[in-house]
Parts: sequence; structure tokens; C-alpha cells
Amino acid sequence: MNGQTSAAAAEKHNSYEHLPDNHPRHLIPSLCRQFYALKWVTGTGGGVAMKYDDCYYLAPSGVQKERITAEDLFVLREPTDEEQQDPTINTSNSLLPDTPIVTVSSPPASKRYTASQCTPLFFSAFSLRQAACCIHTHSQAAVLITLLYQKEFKITHQEMIKGIRIGSTKNNYQFYDTLRIPIIENTVRIRQYTFSSHADDDNRRSR
Amino acid sequence: MNGQTSAAAAEKHNSYEHLPDNHPRHLIPSLCRQFYALKWVTGTGGGVAMKYDDCYYLAPSGVQKERITAEDLFVLREPTDEEQQDPTINTSNSLLPDTPIVTVSSPPASKRYTASQCTPLFFSAFSLRQAACCIHTHSQAAVLITLLYQKEFKITHQEMIKGIRIGSTKNNYQFYDTLRIPIIENTVRIRQYTFSSHADDDNRRSR
Amino acid sequence: MNGQTSAAAAEKHNSYEHLPDNHPRHLIPSLCRQFYALKWVTGTGGGVAMKYDDCYYLAPSGVQKERITAEDLFVLREPTDEEQQDPTINTSNSLLPDTPIVTVSSPPASKRYTASQCTPLFFSAFSLRQAACCIHTHSQAAVLITLLYQKEFKITHQEMIKGIRIGSTKNNYQFYDTLRIPIIENTVRIRQYTFSSHADDDNRRSR
Amino acid sequence: MNGQTSAAAAEKHNSYEHLPDNHPRHLIPSLCRQFYALKWVTGTGGGVAMKYDDCYYLAPSGVQKERITAEDLFVLREPTDEEQQDPTINTSNSLLPDTPIVTVSSPPASKRYTASQCTPLFFSAFSLRQAACCIHTHSQAAVLITLLYQKEFKITHQEMIKGIRIGSTKNNYQFYDTLRIPIIENTVRIRQYTFSSHADDDNRRSR
Repeated sequence: MNGQTSAAAAEKHNSYEHLPDNHPRHLIPSLCRQFYALKWVTGTGGGVAMKYDDCYYLAPSGVQKERITAEDLFVLREPTDEEQQDPTINTSNSLLPDTPIVTVSSPPASKRYTASQCTPLFFSAFSLRQAACCIHTHSQAAVLITLLYQKEFKITHQEMIKGIRIGSTKNNYQFYDTLRIPIIENTVRIRQYTFSSHADDDNRRSR
Repeated sequence: MNGQTSAAAAEKHNSYEHLPDNHPRHLIPSLCRQFYALKWVTGTGGGVAMKYDDCYYLAPSGVQKERITAEDLFVLREPTDEEQQDPTINTSNSLLPDTPIVTVSSPPASKRYTASQCTPLFFSAFSLRQAACCIHTHSQAAVLITLLYQKEFKITHQEMIKGIRIGSTKNNYQFYDTLRIPIIENTVRIRQYTFSSHADDDNRRSR
Repeated sequence: MNGQTSAAAAEKHNSYEHLPDNHPRHLIPSLCRQFYALKWVTGTGGGVAMKYDDCYYLAPSGVQKERITAEDLFVLREPTDEEQQDPTINTSNSLLPDTPIVTVSSPPASKRYTASQCTPLFFSAFSLRQAACCIHTHSQAAVLITLLYQKEFKITHQEMIKGIRIGSTKNNYQFYDTLRIPIIENTVRIRQYTFSSHADDDNRRSR
Repeated sequence: MNGQTSAAAAEKHNSYEHLPDNHPRHLIPSLCRQFYALKWVTGTGGGVAMKYDDCYYLAPSGVQKERITAEDLFVLREPTDEEQQDPTINTSNSLLPDTPIVTVSSPPASKRYTASQCTPLFFSAFSLRQAACCIHTHSQAAVLITLLYQKEFKITHQEMIKGIRIGSTKNNYQFYDTLRIPIIENTVRIRQYTFSSHADDDNRRSR
């Protein structure tokens, strides 16, 4: 009875060179460089997280996003029922106090990296909305929208909204649909935003 | 009596490394990365198609344009007269119901890629206007122009319009000429736009 | 009595790999890619020319600037007195009807490239103003300035003007100086602009 | 009694290939290319300096920032007490007349590079404010701010100010704090700006 899956098993190796280009260990650093060039994540600001197989891959906090390497990711996974009852297995994580979780891999201790303060927010998106990937952006365009509108940004009659899923359904917005993005006031420290059950509230932005 | 030409023959190989840099197998992925950097094709949006020798090369639909590889292209060609009368040769394509066409090559089945919904539009440009290459863009500049003008965007006294052919002639616009770009309302699904016989109507944009 | 110099001698080789990175054969293609990324030269528009030792290196006309390779350059040099009197040496060039010039090297004939129509303009800058490098740009910023101002664009109190030489002197503009850039109406075909003897008229732009 | 430390010792080698990617010899050229792409340092304008271990690394003056190589840096360090009393050791530098300093390494003499005129300004930041890295920028955004405001630019309620230290403390600005950036009139030549003892005056800009 082994809780290991292919993604977790891949983490047992000491290097990541054997993994394909589209594995999160390579894809997240590649996307971070790409998003940096697009000015979506600026230096240490912003973050990216991804679910792959049964593992969650998270970029570290406060690290230049354009310089993240494969070894710099935090990898977490949900414990099996057996693991949850095994006292020798650590299933607690201070960033996720209410969620049993196993730390599969961390960056080298010498780098002293910490997981993003957005981790609980990312996990809300993973668990409540079946998200497969999250981006936490401070792009100037996203910030400007929150300054132009008070409660909500709406957009319609744009082809590009066809790339966005409606809530946690498998359907995408259509050209004539209206995409509504709630604007929520920021707090000094990122707290755990709980996602509501209303599909239209899924795309949230803080300044 | 062999319908094969050099371009179609090149497709018989299992790899594309032997082809020169300016062959569509390499040029289209390279241009897609370049157009992505220019924000002309954004992620899965937009598309590129090219005619080379007797083959048509099309980027797949819904794939990150900046990550397309040589094997990801669809390659089509017109059948010879003999092939059209040979019942063992498939000359039908659901995207081009009125055009006999042979599928020379498709992306690996494991990738489950589909040809662009713009395929009929691209083929109208190829057949009715002798286009050699098509780009389907969602650049912000192109979209903004359709919001600023209702029916047509006109521009003159600009050196850069000298790079654009007048309709399907071999002549280019001159500095003092006026380039007119029709603006056509978008539809929920891309339908087959038929090109008119009026040269000035050649450059069309949907939002 | 050999008119050959080191730059011309370097052109006798069949390849350019042995030349250093800052040789025009490598520097011009590298700068063209860089200027394309900056949107200073857009595709086939614009051009670059450079004087190095006793040779003039010119980018070809109508070629995608971001895809120029070392072999794509035209290399010209002024003939020696002896060469000018030697009927076996061709010292004429249709683009420079009044200037005896020797063609040291051209792109491979199979590419059918032609030298830039700006060649006479570049040579006016080389001969009348002792320019060492010329850029012919269609950047949106440069074009917009010609639309905002009628006869002249002036700028002062900017650190960056310290990078610009005053006419053909060895002195640069200072922070408090005023840089004046004449705006000259474009013509359908690029004609030979003759540079005036007034230092302030050196920086010219056409739309 | 050897004043040598690890950083200075690394400079004894003839090449820099053995140094890690994040060593200033590699990091400064890499950041200069990155900052050039961001249009923070434009060609020969602007500069970067960094303190690492006991050495100061400075980009050369008037050199294309995007083309700086590892060997192009100036490396300085403070002399030990013994070195200061040793007449055979040169501890003077014309750019830092009041500061005893040892030149650990300079670019190859054949390149004729000079240290940045900003060197005294960088050293004020290093010594008076415990800065670890300095950037001298001519970005259009920075210049525009000095044209929009007279004496000071203030910004608050922005996540990105959390990346900036408060004066020479170890604390960073918080979301609700106000970051104040003084605007100081430029002079023809960069003179030694002396940093005041008021923490809020730490971030200075000249046009």
C-alpha cells in the first residue's frame, strides 16, 4: 500500500534533467521567465503554482521570478488515509493549518527559501475551484484596472475571453458573454481568501 | 505519374532537422515565438498559415503559440486530378467541405491537436487572393482599431504601408497611397468569410 | 602597391566565423536583431550601415532585419588612385553615380538581394559628416514626432542627449544644450539628401 | 596578516568561468542585459554597482550596457589598516579623493575603459546607507516622474513598495506606507551627492 504516484516518484531523483520540458519542474521556471518578460511577475513579486498528477508545485517566496531554477520549487501532496493515521509522517504545514499535507520536496536548505504566503490562497483555488494552475500577478495592467473600477471589472465582445473557463465548469466564456472580475481590497498581509460558491466570483484580484 | 512534389516529399521523413531554417516546419514555430513576443498572437489565440511549394502548413488550434514545435503543424495539399478520381485516397476534410484536399501530415495523435477553426478563412485567402502567408491576430493594437472605427481603418503617408501588396497584384502600396482595412463584425464561431472581388477589401479584421 | 587593407583582406575568406564578435559582419546582424526587438527597424523596413577600417558595410534592402546573417551584407570601399586609373577594375555603382567605389563583397547571388536605396544617403553621412554608423529607422516614436512637429523637434535638459555628437565635431551635447532634429518631408522614393554645412542640421528624419 | 578575502582572492585568476552564475562578475553583465531589455539602462547611459564580500564591483562608463562582459568590471576594496600605512600600496583613486581605496582589478588596458563618474555617488550609498547594490537609471518612467512632480514623488497602497527597504534599516515598506522619492535637480556633471541622515531622503533621482 504505497501512496507514491508517478509525480511523487519523480521527486525521488536528485536531479531534474531527465524530466520532460513540460514537467512543472521545468515549466514553472520557464513560465516565470516568460511572465517576467511580459511584466506579469516583477522580480520578487507575484507567484505561480501548478497541480500535476497528485502533486502541487509552488514557486518560492521573495525570489527573483526570472531566475528560479528547477530545484527551487516546493512540492506538496495530499496524504493517503493511511499516511494520515501514521504518526511518523508529518502532515502539517504552518501555511495550511487546516489541511493535512505532505511536503514531498523543498529547495536546498542552504538557499533558505520559504513557500509563498499565497500558498493558502492557491490551495483554496485548487480545492474549492479545481484550478490546475494559479498566477499571482502585480502587472501594471491588473493594478490599473483596480484603480479605475471599484468593485468589479467587466469585459465582453472580446475573442480572448474565450480562453477563460467559467468557474469550475469545463465550459469557456463565449465572445458575447460578459466576464466579471471582482476587485477585493488588499490587506497588509495576504490572508486566506475563501472562494464563494458563486461561479462568477471566481476571478479575484487584489491590488 | 506521381503527385508528390519536393515539399510533400520532405514530409515523408520522420524528423525535420534536415530541413533548412526557412522551411515552414521551422519558420512557423520561429515566427510564432516572434509574434508572441510582439503580442500579435497571445498564448492560444491567433494563428499562422503558410503556402510553400504545393503544400499548406497550418499551426494547430488552441496551442500556446510560443511553444509550437516542428511536428505540431498540419500539412495539406490539393490532390492531383488522378488522386481526385482514386477512391482509395481521402480528399475530404471537415473544415473544408467544398474543397478536395489531401492531408499530408498531422501532429502526433497523442497530442490530440486539431486544425485551426480559421482553416477555411485561410484557404479563402490562399485560393481567392493568392496569399502566401496568413496571420490571425488578436493584438491589442488591431483590437483597439476596431473599437475606434466602425467600418474601416484608413492610413496614408506612412513608409511602412510600402510593405503591403495591393490585393492579389504584384504591386505594393506607395507612401502617398491610402491603405483601407475593412472592419467586419465578429461572430460567435469563426465562419468562412468569402473574399470579395474588390481589391481594397482584401485586408479584413475581426475584433 | 596593394590597395588591400585588413578589413578588405578579411573579406577574402569564405566564412566569417573567425572574425571577432564586434566585427561588422557579426555586429550588424546582432544590432539588427536588437533594433528589431526595440521596434526601431520593423521587418523589411529601416536599415543599418557601418564604416570599419576602410570598408563600408551595408545591410541588404527589403530583408527581414531580425534574420540577416553575416553573408547578407554588402561591403564597399573607396578605390586607391591606382585602381581608379585601372580600366580592369570596376569602380562604378548605380546607387552612387558620382562616387568611384569598389564592391568588395556581395550576398550570395542566389539570394537576389539588392543594396538599400538609402545607400546614397548613408554615403552622404559618411563623407560629408564623418559618420561611422547610420541607422534608418521607422520606429513609432520617430514617426510620431514628425506628426507632432512641423519643421523641427527640439529637446533639452535630458541626460541622454549627452550620447550624441554635435555635427561632425568630436564634442557631445551637454545636459543644458538643445538638440535640434530637422523634420524633412518624405518623398515617394528615397532620394539623395545632401547634408548642409550647418552642424545643427545633421540629424534628419523623414516620416 | 593578509588583507585578502575570498572575493579579492577570486580576482587573482585570469578568467571568471569558474565563478558561479550569481557572482558579480557574471551577475552584473547579466543584470545589465536584463535592465537594457527593460529600458532601465539605455546603451551607454546608466550604470550598476554591487558590493560582494569586501569588494565593490562597478560597470564601466560609456559602454553599451547590454554588451558588458565579465572582464569589463572595475573591482575596488577598502585597504586594511596595515595597507594604509604601506607606502608601496596605492590607496588613492581620483574619483574618490577622500576615500582610501585599493584597485583590485580593472578592465583590459586595451579597452581604455574608465570607471563611472557615478562612482562617488555609488560609494556614498555604500558607506552612508549600507546599500548592497546601486542602479543609475535613465528609464523613461523615472524621467517622466521628475517632469510631473517638482520636489518629490509619493506612492502608497501598492504591493510592490514592499520590495523596498526603509532607509538603511532592515525593514521594508508595507502596503499602507508612503514611499517618498526626492527629486533633485541635475547638474552638468555628476557631482558627489551626500546622503542626508533622514531615512526618507534615501531614494534620490536626478533627471
